[in-house]
Amino acid sequence: MTAPIVFYYEFSSPFGYLASEMIGDLAQRHGRAIDWKPFLLGPVFKAEGTQSLMSYPMKGAYSARDLERTARLHGIPFKWPSSFPFLSVAAARAAYWAGQRDQAAMARVTQALYRACFGEGRDISHSSQVADVLSGEGYEVDVVEAALKDPGVKQMLKDENDDALSKGVFGSPMFLVEGEPFWGVDKLPMLDRWLETGGW
Amino acid sequence: MTAPIVFYYEFSSPFGYLASEMIGDLAQRHGRAIDWKPFLLGPVFKAEGTQSLMSYPMKGAYSARDLERTARLHGIPFKWPSSFPFLSVAAARAAYWAGQRDQAAMARVTQALYRACFGEGRDISHSSQVADVLSGEGYEVDVVEAALKDPGVKQMLKDENDDALSKGVFGSPMFLVEGEPFWGVDKLPMLDRWLETGGW
Repeated sequence: MTAPIVFYYEFSSPFGYLASEMIGDLAQRHGRAIDWKPFLLGPVFKAEGTQSLMSYPMKGAYSARDLERTARLHGIPFKWPSSFPFLSVAAARAAYWAGQRDQAAMARVTQALYRACFGEGRDISHSSQVADVLSGEGYEVDVVEAALKDPGVKQMLKDENDDALSKGVFGSPMFLVEGEPFWGVDKLPMLDRWLETGGW
Repeated sequence: MTAPIVFYYEFSSPFGYLASEMIGDLAQRHGRAIDWKPFLLGPVFKAEGTQSLMSYPMKGAYSARDLERTARLHGIPFKWPSSFPFLSVAAARAAYWAGQRDQAAMARVTQALYRACFGEGRDISHSSQVADVLSGEGYEVDVVEAALKDPGVKQMLKDENDDALSKGVFGSPMFLVEGEPFWGVDKLPMLDRWLETGGW
């Protein structure tokens, strides 16, 4: 039984979105499961003394350009959301809540939220918007909205976030395979090679 | 006549070193010349509000690990220099001074300095150390040391640095091909594809 690819992503990270569209094929090729782990970059920025990628004048401009050409290269629909960057607490809580059932549900909810946001440019920062996206996946709006206020669900995200920080997760997307970290969409080819060769 | 690959690198950047060992084959495959452009990250850090990669607790630890595995993957000798990070003004001036003859001389001097530093772990922060490395390439120590104090050489680096900043060069390595920017060793495969396809 091989270890899963642990996939860390922040819902307001457009590179996390691109990765979410690409990791499935890669994992399948190597017979690996994916462990979906949304997290919040806010505490990372605080710990590292950094800020949102797009807020840096030169790096931000480059990243926006790189994002669009990377999406074009891989044929992934991309549209800047109306609200960006945004607080992704509601989206991350929804994913963990859905993920209590199983990882397949978490994957579906993650992709529905990411596609609404960066594929269609919709705002997913508010609970009601998150519930609206999930209703397209067969969830009841009222049930989702209640879940997003549930102390247990809130705690789940908090614990996962602390755990990610303790593992040195500082960016989105980031992948861990048996403890080996890979950061960024540009690292997917190296992750692919690592899984193929067993590392070097 | 196709445009050259403009290669921006900071001498104290270990990823710049890896790129300097990899860009030659790539350029040759596409029949492109390389325009070697050492620059200083100091003014970039000031303009962007950032600092040396290695100074970030989590990103720094990740980057050190990533650097070593990337070097292993490509069979590039790597050793942390005794002084790191370091001021690379002398190294950058030496490269521009040598480059007045031609780009081949600049490439040779760049590789000699980078290999001494990150291949053998030698300190290249002082003028005398830079001159010592260049003496291995057939340059006279006294002539190099005099050149490093030459106001014209100092101005050359200053002008190049201003020019790099004005073009949005914010990291090392960074490549520009007909204005299209590619940042990082991990971007070399995309640069390769861009040159192969003419862009997308």
